[in-house]
Amino acid sequence: MREVAIIGIGQTQVGEHWDKSLREIAGEAVMAALNDAGREQADGIFVGNMMSGTLSHQENLGALIADWVGLRGVEAFKIEAACGSGAGAVHMGVMAVASGYMECVIAMGVEKMSETPMPVTTAALATAADAEYEADQGVSFVGLNALIMQRYLHEYGWKHTDFAPFSINAHANAINNPNARLHERITQHEYNKARMICDPINLMDASPTGDGAAAVVLVPVDTLRPNGGPLVRIAGSTAATDTIAVHNRRDPLWLNAAYKSAQKAYTQAGVNPADIDVFELHDAFSIMTALSLEACGFAERGQGPRLGLEGEIGPGDRIPIASCGGLKARGHPVGATGVYQIVEVVQQLRGEAGKNQVDGALVGMAQNIGGSGSNIITHILRSS
Amino acid sequence: MREVAIIGIGQTQVGEHWDKSLREIAGEAVMAALNDAGREQADGIFVGNMMSGTLSHQENLGALIADWVGLRGVEAFKIEAACGSGAGAVHMGVMAVASGYMECVIAMGVEKMSETPMPVTTAALATAADAEYEADQGVSFVGLNALIMQRYLHEYGWKHTDFAPFSINAHANAINNPNARLHERITQHEYNKARMICDPINLMDASPTGDGAAAVVLVPVDTLRPNGGPLVRIAGSTAATDTIAVHNRRDPLWLNAAYKSAQKAYTQAGVNPADIDVFELHDAFSIMTALSLEACGFAERGQGPRLGLEGEIGPGDRIPIASCGGLKARGHPVGATGVYQIVEVVQQLRGEAGKNQVDGALVGMAQNIGGSGSNIITHILRSS
Repeated sequence: MREVAIIGIGQTQVGEHWDKSLREIAGEAVMAALNDAGREQADGIFVGNMMSGTLSHQENLGALIADWVGLRGVEAFKIEAACGSGAGAVHMGVMAVASGYMECVIAMGVEKMSETPMPVTTAALATAADAEYEADQGVSFVGLNALIMQRYLHEYGWKHTDFAPFSINAHANAINNPNARLHERITQHEYNKARMICDPINLMDASPTGDGAAAVVLVPVDTLRPNGGPLVRIAGSTAATDTIAVHNRRDPLWLNAAYKSAQKAYTQAGVNPADIDVFELHDAFSIMTALSLEACGFAERGQGPRLGLEGEIGPGDRIPIASCGGLKARGHPVGATGVYQIVEVVQQLRGEAGKNQVDGALVGMAQNIGGSGSNIITHILRSS
Repeated sequence: MREVAIIGIGQTQVGEHWDKSLREIAGEAVMAALNDAGREQADGIFVGNMMSGTLSHQENLGALIADWVGLRGVEAFKIEAACGSGAGAVHMGVMAVASGYMECVIAMGVEKMSETPMPVTTAALATAADAEYEADQGVSFVGLNALIMQRYLHEYGWKHTDFAPFSINAHANAINNPNARLHERITQHEYNKARMICDPINLMDASPTGDGAAAVVLVPVDTLRPNGGPLVRIAGSTAATDTIAVHNRRDPLWLNAAYKSAQKAYTQAGVNPADIDVFELHDAFSIMTALSLEACGFAERGQGPRLGLEGEIGPGDRIPIASCGGLKARGHPVGATGVYQIVEVVQQLRGEAGKNQVDGALVGMAQNIGGSGSNIITHILRSS
């Protein structure tokens, strides 16, 4: 199996791009990544996307984007794993290069959400859950996360306000990320007083969606010559699933797919949680931050909020998370999010994260969650 | 790169399965394939599907199906390439096994279409075309194919009735396939008199859609011990794209992605068209049969219909096509079709194709077309 490197990254700002279509924002990210890599060609494009069929009446995104970016003819497919689609596309790209089928792959994610009426988007997001046993009962995706958070507060005795540090950290870091959707610092008071979305999830627990695209360029390590700069290698690329419906889990407060995919990634990379210098986790809702930290071995079960309260999660702390704003403040353009996470880890490992740089970061992890924890993809990157 | 074999196949009948949900028909095909392979476990599931988000309000099919078939925890993703989604899933599965990331993969396709009102399905199918430059102008997917066929008749001087042998052959072969949707023999007279769908495409030029699922089990060849039976190897697994919009092609009557993916597959397999004993092509419309035969090197440009008229396409003839009914009569459950094609080639190479058996078939090809020729996946299988 050939070792794979990321030699180019690209992203658009997350926001409401009323003046650009889906293919245009996708193209911006791809061209930026190719330019960063110093390449003009690729053998394949893997596109992470969840909802284009419903929101833009457009499937066949592989052909659409290959055509648009001037790579007409190359292999191109859309990969879907709900909110985990982006990292899923990177995982496919890694296998395509590792197998020897391809020498250069663009793995990207794109989602165009702003132009669709909110009820349509809410219904489209609910397709990540079990349509027949969850969505048909009327529970939305936020609703499922609220049920999990309510249970967590009850089971482990935390107060809702104990989750504030996760959101405060994400917002603080996003201020220095020009591609982030939100650039407002928030306080504990603002968190506490934010309007309720779905009890106990308030506006400061929930990530904003948006339009966005991000891309990486993947090649085999053995074809590269040293160029003096740091080389970012894929040390682990894994995925795992869980029951699609939350009610079927033995413990709805344990992200077993996060645990499984992280363990596989640690094994592939030959590292353990203490070796991770920066961790881009899937903070779509603040409860997911706690559950991810626990499942990946950074906190004891039920003790996730402690890391925030004890000041362990900032760029200079024990386990920096949401270092460029996370889903909470960079924004969550659903099918693109997993690629944004990986792009941000690459920035950290290259020392290009600006004011949020984690000094001496050599090993970074990105974890992308599809559904209510039903499909989780973990990547570990290493700089050398 | 490890060589990959198909050791199990499964399929459901193509039809209107009012009593079964999407996950149920998917599960039937997966369990049949695992049973055929003599396996109970797999490392990953790749699901080809185009329209579940719109038609069944269900995305995240990887997690859904892994959960349903009792393989909760394994890696699982949905692959979308419009009508080419099924073969796209097999192509991903091949790369996953070839790379060494996985030891056993289930690649499958599923589409559930019967329960949706026809205008919704027609709109969903149009998402395979260019939403902004084709579908928004009001042209449906059948309409695009009709424009291509009209141009072909004009350019090369064929009569519409010259395409009849393709449909007659498909219907004749489907009679012996218990999984086919249609079991009615048709005559030249019936073809000529069939009601018009979209001039010049009449009912006998167009394939019926339907509910269906098909699956294959993929493993590395080097892990298998001889068991006395034929072993079906993946000799070629390729894809190529073209412009998504038909009007952007230099020649709308030439399937360049079929040509490119077939040439790559011939090279990978070390064969040429004369070596292909059976060819499952993508006869969604009879014009696509002619264009595929030409692009893959079985007929001169503009001469595709000649193969039908000269009796070259039946099970005992020079290049047997639609040997189990093809899309025209087996049916076209969109995202599943590419896997049905591969399952049928495996049946031929194993000598299990019953009354439609191509004697001594050793090398078979399956070609799955997404969009109006914009994303085309070609597999060559070899029996040994």
